[in-house]
Amino acid sequence: MDTESSLIPNGTVTSPQGFLAGASYAGIKTRGDGVLDLGLLCSEVPCVAAGVFTTNKVKAAPVVLCRERLAGGTARAIVVNSGCANACTGEQGIADSNTMAELTARKLGVPSEEILVASTGVIGVPLPMERIRNGIEEIVLSGEGGHQLARAIMTTDTLPKEIAVSVRLGEKRVTIGGIAKGVGMIYPDMATLLCFLTTDAVLDASLAQTALRKAVDESFNMIAIDSDTSTNDTVLLLASGLAGNKLLQAGSAEAEVFQDALREVCIYLAKCLARDGEGATKLIEVRVEGALTLKEARLAARTVASSSLVKAALHGSDPNWGRILAAVGRSGAEIDLPKTDLYLKELCLLKAGCPVAFEQAEARERLSNTEVSIRVCLNLGKESAIAWGCDLSEEYVTINSDYAT
Amino acid sequence: MDTESSLIPNGTVTSPQGFLAGASYAGIKTRGDGVLDLGLLCSEVPCVAAGVFTTNKVKAAPVVLCRERLAGGTARAIVVNSGCANACTGEQGIADSNTMAELTARKLGVPSEEILVASTGVIGVPLPMERIRNGIEEIVLSGEGGHQLARAIMTTDTLPKEIAVSVRLGEKRVTIGGIAKGVGMIYPDMATLLCFLTTDAVLDASLAQTALRKAVDESFNMIAIDSDTSTNDTVLLLASGLAGNKLLQAGSAEAEVFQDALREVCIYLAKCLARDGEGATKLIEVRVEGALTLKEARLAARTVASSSLVKAALHGSDPNWGRILAAVGRSGAEIDLPKTDLYLKELCLLKAGCPVAFEQAEARERLSNTEVSIRVCLNLGKESAIAWGCDLSEEYVTINSDYAT
Repeated sequence: MDTESSLIPNGTVTSPQGFLAGASYAGIKTRGDGVLDLGLLCSEVPCVAAGVFTTNKVKAAPVVLCRERLAGGTARAIVVNSGCANACTGEQGIADSNTMAELTARKLGVPSEEILVASTGVIGVPLPMERIRNGIEEIVLSGEGGHQLARAIMTTDTLPKEIAVSVRLGEKRVTIGGIAKGVGMIYPDMATLLCFLTTDAVLDASLAQTALRKAVDESFNMIAIDSDTSTNDTVLLLASGLAGNKLLQAGSAEAEVFQDALREVCIYLAKCLARDGEGATKLIEVRVEGALTLKEARLAARTVASSSLVKAALHGSDPNWGRILAAVGRSGAEIDLPKTDLYLKELCLLKAGCPVAFEQAEARERLSNTEVSIRVCLNLGKESAIAWGCDLSEEYVTINSDYAT
Repeated sequence: MDTESSLIPNGTVTSPQGFLAGASYAGIKTRGDGVLDLGLLCSEVPCVAAGVFTTNKVKAAPVVLCRERLAGGTARAIVVNSGCANACTGEQGIADSNTMAELTARKLGVPSEEILVASTGVIGVPLPMERIRNGIEEIVLSGEGGHQLARAIMTTDTLPKEIAVSVRLGEKRVTIGGIAKGVGMIYPDMATLLCFLTTDAVLDASLAQTALRKAVDESFNMIAIDSDTSTNDTVLLLASGLAGNKLLQAGSAEAEVFQDALREVCIYLAKCLARDGEGATKLIEVRVEGALTLKEARLAARTVASSSLVKAALHGSDPNWGRILAAVGRSGAEIDLPKTDLYLKELCLLKAGCPVAFEQAEARERLSNTEVSIRVCLNLGKESAIAWGCDLSEEYVTINSDYAT
């Protein structure tokens, strides 16, 4: 079986069969050149749907709405705004999310229960519903609209994030597309992560949910976010089934090919998010090998990738490996120093717990790249994990010291 | 019983009876005006001793040594250097810590086993033992030497941190003194915290250890450090017993007076550390009230105080209360939004989960102070806790992007 995925040129969330999207400027964000702040993604046919949401105990209204509506495992469209999170907005917030869905349902001529809603932006401010009403009316849907939608969901992102890949499943070729928006600083208390995924594969709701959960665990949950999440984080998957493949069976070779492709899409988007972290100048990849358990490998990798001291050191191309070890040491993962090796950009700095002499100049040279890799070999077990993060720059602070106002 | 403590003017770790200290410049740190990098604290008589150490699985050599030696509950002196952490230095590191103790024991004419050792500074670099040997010889001990010692343990601290208070215990007045050094950014992956406490109170090793643990939990463990710690964190207490009070009994009124005074000293030093966080311009005090359990109250307070987004917002005097709620929501503490109130500098921004209209200008005015208080009332139970932190400034990044080299 040909299990290789193909990258679709200029691919996006509307690349799979049956999906349309569009966006408008409703006036929620401050106007600027080409600014969009409202968007709509819909399917020409009813979809199987799955979602993964924030674990934060403070949940925004749209998250509450989506969780309820996904219980049935189907959906038709997603309406989303940026500039206002509709979080901590009480009963009014819930009503406003419902109204957003209702307005969208009327536009599309489908039942309101089939509409999912997402919001991102400032917390504690009510949605400007009149503007949203007009904005939804103005949206023009098209098969190329995914590119517009990718821009409409941006907050402090500097670039839209989108991708689509296709894989062969039996006789058919199925496509998976996705867009995502950024997560403030990629950090334990991240700003909102939104990701919308589409596919034309035929699969049932149970497999969709399992596959999405698994892909999220290996991608968005590994960008130094811990299990900590914002009030609005939402990852949604819609499957139109229009590719006409044989219904995917859990545990089958085809399901695995689909899982790999979904993971590829999610990891691509997650790395885009890490690279585009607020003020970031470098993508940091942390690989922890030889951990006793997968949980410990993930914990250690994420702790290193989210350490302020590690991030600040790498910003300055400073090979301060002590901070990396200290982060592993406090992560909760088992570590036995005399067994530990550590590499920065494949330059060995620690072998069996002993510092290895290295040229400062060479290390700095390697670290001054826009991609930096850290590898910690615990040499205790067989599990490994990769986490992604970004460096911590002065600009991050500047961005975040004046966001609300 | 008069339970009020008195602040001792110009008080320090040598204020309690029986303690001498001194410091020298050994050449471990870069020389500068009045720079000290080696210090010694000792008692004229054998002391009851207690210690609280890092929970990091990567432990520096001096921490390993101290933990072993404190098993007996007695000690005579502490030798300490800054500029080099003696962490991740393998067998050589252990040997070097032992040698530091040995050199100190010879200088003082006491058994080597009675000497405790502490180090702080860069990780992974061996101690320059010849310089330390000379440095120890050069130290001149005096009853005023606590002030020198407080400066000798500084790394990125901008100010020495010292205090002494006295309280009446029965017929006698006993004194508690302390010095501390800073913790990089006061953060989950903090740089080393060192604190040396002395008292002339008469108490046994078991009570000393219990009292120290309790005081640390309410002070150093509440400066946004979580349970996460560096490789070298060390808090030591030496009790000379020279005040001649009746042996303190656990659970007695006198023991409580002592506990209160010890807590006062530790909280004072902890707040100094928070205020002196790298690049900090503001002290942040977070009070969480009405939590279901003490553990949850502490968790929530610490999570808010250590949130990068909250810290950055307060740096810019930005009343972004959504970030505070999001931090509580992900802390693990129970929160029911419709019951939650939130105050910034006693200005109510959220009442029963609903945003309260406020003047941006007034809020900004209040937040532009050098001390900022946050109060979150969960209204679920009776437990409360206070945590301290500092704002996150551009300067923090600058400091930490070039430390090792």
